[in-house]
Amino acid sequence: GKIVFFNRPMDPTQISTFDAYSGAVDQRGSGAAEAAKYGAVAAIVRSMSLRLDDYPHTGAMHYNDSFPKIPSAAISTNDAELLSGMLKEKKSLKIFLKMNCQTLEEVNSFNVIGEIKGNEFPDEIIAVGGHLDSWDPGEGAHDDGAGCIQSVEVLRLFKSMGIKPKRTLRAVMFMNEENGLRGAKKYADNAKAKGENHLAAIESDAGGFSPRGFGIDASPEKTKIVLSWKSLFEQFGLPEVEPGHSGADISQLKNGSTALFGLSPDSQRYFDFHHASTDVFEGVNKRELELGSAAMASLIYLIDKYGL
Amino acid sequence: GKIVFFNRPMDPTQISTFDAYSGAVDQRGSGAAEAAKYGAVAAIVRSMSLRLDDYPHTGAMHYNDSFPKIPSAAISTNDAELLSGMLKEKKSLKIFLKMNCQTLEEVNSFNVIGEIKGNEFPDEIIAVGGHLDSWDPGEGAHDDGAGCIQSVEVLRLFKSMGIKPKRTLRAVMFMNEENGLRGAKKYADNAKAKGENHLAAIESDAGGFSPRGFGIDASPEKTKIVLSWKSLFEQFGLPEVEPGHSGADISQLKNGSTALFGLSPDSQRYFDFHHASTDVFEGVNKRELELGSAAMASLIYLIDKYGL
Repeated sequence: GKIVFFNRPMDPTQISTFDAYSGAVDQRGSGAAEAAKYGAVAAIVRSMSLRLDDYPHTGAMHYNDSFPKIPSAAISTNDAELLSGMLKEKKSLKIFLKMNCQTLEEVNSFNVIGEIKGNEFPDEIIAVGGHLDSWDPGEGAHDDGAGCIQSVEVLRLFKSMGIKPKRTLRAVMFMNEENGLRGAKKYADNAKAKGENHLAAIESDAGGFSPRGFGIDASPEKTKIVLSWKSLFEQFGLPEVEPGHSGADISQLKNGSTALFGLSPDSQRYFDFHHASTDVFEGVNKRELELGSAAMASLIYLIDKYGL
Repeated sequence: GKIVFFNRPMDPTQISTFDAYSGAVDQRGSGAAEAAKYGAVAAIVRSMSLRLDDYPHTGAMHYNDSFPKIPSAAISTNDAELLSGMLKEKKSLKIFLKMNCQTLEEVNSFNVIGEIKGNEFPDEIIAVGGHLDSWDPGEGAHDDGAGCIQSVEVLRLFKSMGIKPKRTLRAVMFMNEENGLRGAKKYADNAKAKGENHLAAIESDAGGFSPRGFGIDASPEKTKIVLSWKSLFEQFGLPEVEPGHSGADISQLKNGSTALFGLSPDSQRYFDFHHASTDVFEGVNKRELELGSAAMASLIYLIDKYGL
């Protein structure tokens, strides 16, 4: 009959805030399910943010069907500190939870796709994408408005420079990444059904911050080709071109052949915004956003020019 | 009898915004002096910022004593765009300048210095500093409150970790960097008069942003030692450890022996704040600021441990 309070902060000593997130997000994802096993009536979770502020950061969580589906609420980091202090003073503290979130009926929604046809190998597709949906609290400006805009911008950059690509460049705004990757799964299913050949896919879903490189998820042979371009990126402040994570959406295209890439922006501020009401247009810096587009356009230019 | 309008934007294609600044700041620095040569009655300068916004960015400018000292005003980038458009429509446009800046009488002010005495080579000083003054419009949070706080924080980090340095660590907040480096000159004069041996000096005066490395201004031998530590920094996201700029204040200590270093943060947002009313406390991200302190503490730890 108790409420379980999960208050383990993200580890601030991790330089990558995504590593810090990975080490703490089990509390939000599995906290309620674990607490229910022991008879808890609710779970309260410290927000996944390294910043002390007043904004709840929410996100996906799951239940265990063998146990009751108890309420789970994220509270801001400041509130978590306050609650922790109050609990130390008064063990018998009572909390009243009033929550109004609900799961609405499903509706149809769509991926949005635009492309420039390749003039030499039109059947070889290089896709660049972000996701069109966002978590509830903010506008989803960094997560993932940035990735959508950057993907459109990549194609615009090719057009504005008058570069006609040999391969087909495709900007994909995936629908419903947050709630099960359903747009990405449908896109991958369609690609397979149509026999489309995706040479490469690049995703921007880590915020519109100053870019530092790319994660590469590709075969050893293709990784080697991309690593041979490392010095070309280094000179423009993109030293982190290395094997790593690509993106949740494009990972649905993984088939042993398609080379996958994830834009790696500086991660320090990402969890100031992630899934919180702070993730609004005004929090995105135009220049940082544009540099991310330019970085992806550069990678795509090289892949288009030299193949993979 | 005309007003000269300098409207050459900072070059957005420079990845380093400091390079873009260097390529445009002559308009603010020398614009009025040059315009006066040709009989202009005033100069108006587009603010040194890559962002389109409504904040004037001001800064140092100089006159040529052989010509009249005409007024010079910085206008925001948005206003520069507006004025440019209006001038295209109406060549005979008239502008009324009402300015209220003035140079007040000089007053005494002071550098602020704190140190931890070295327990093995107390006469070998490693200084870390920023500057205590700021340009008028904002609070000088990035320029250079960040450098001051980071310098104090470096010493606090040594104390909090219980590391007793072999050399003397000194945090120096230099007075009056903006208007002629007078605190820095006095500090260097005093150091010389007292026969102090500065093994190294590190300055943070490029904003409290996510650190990317250090500029090294030292002899080839000492540079080689520091470059041998490069991989130690790279693993923590600091790849840019390379010969380069140190800092305006500590450059006064340059004597062929003292190794000088400048913290290199990501430069993308610096000129959103530089010398404008936007340079306030709220614009500094605590985590980015702390990473800068940690980067400098790490460099100082290595210099203290291995010598130079």
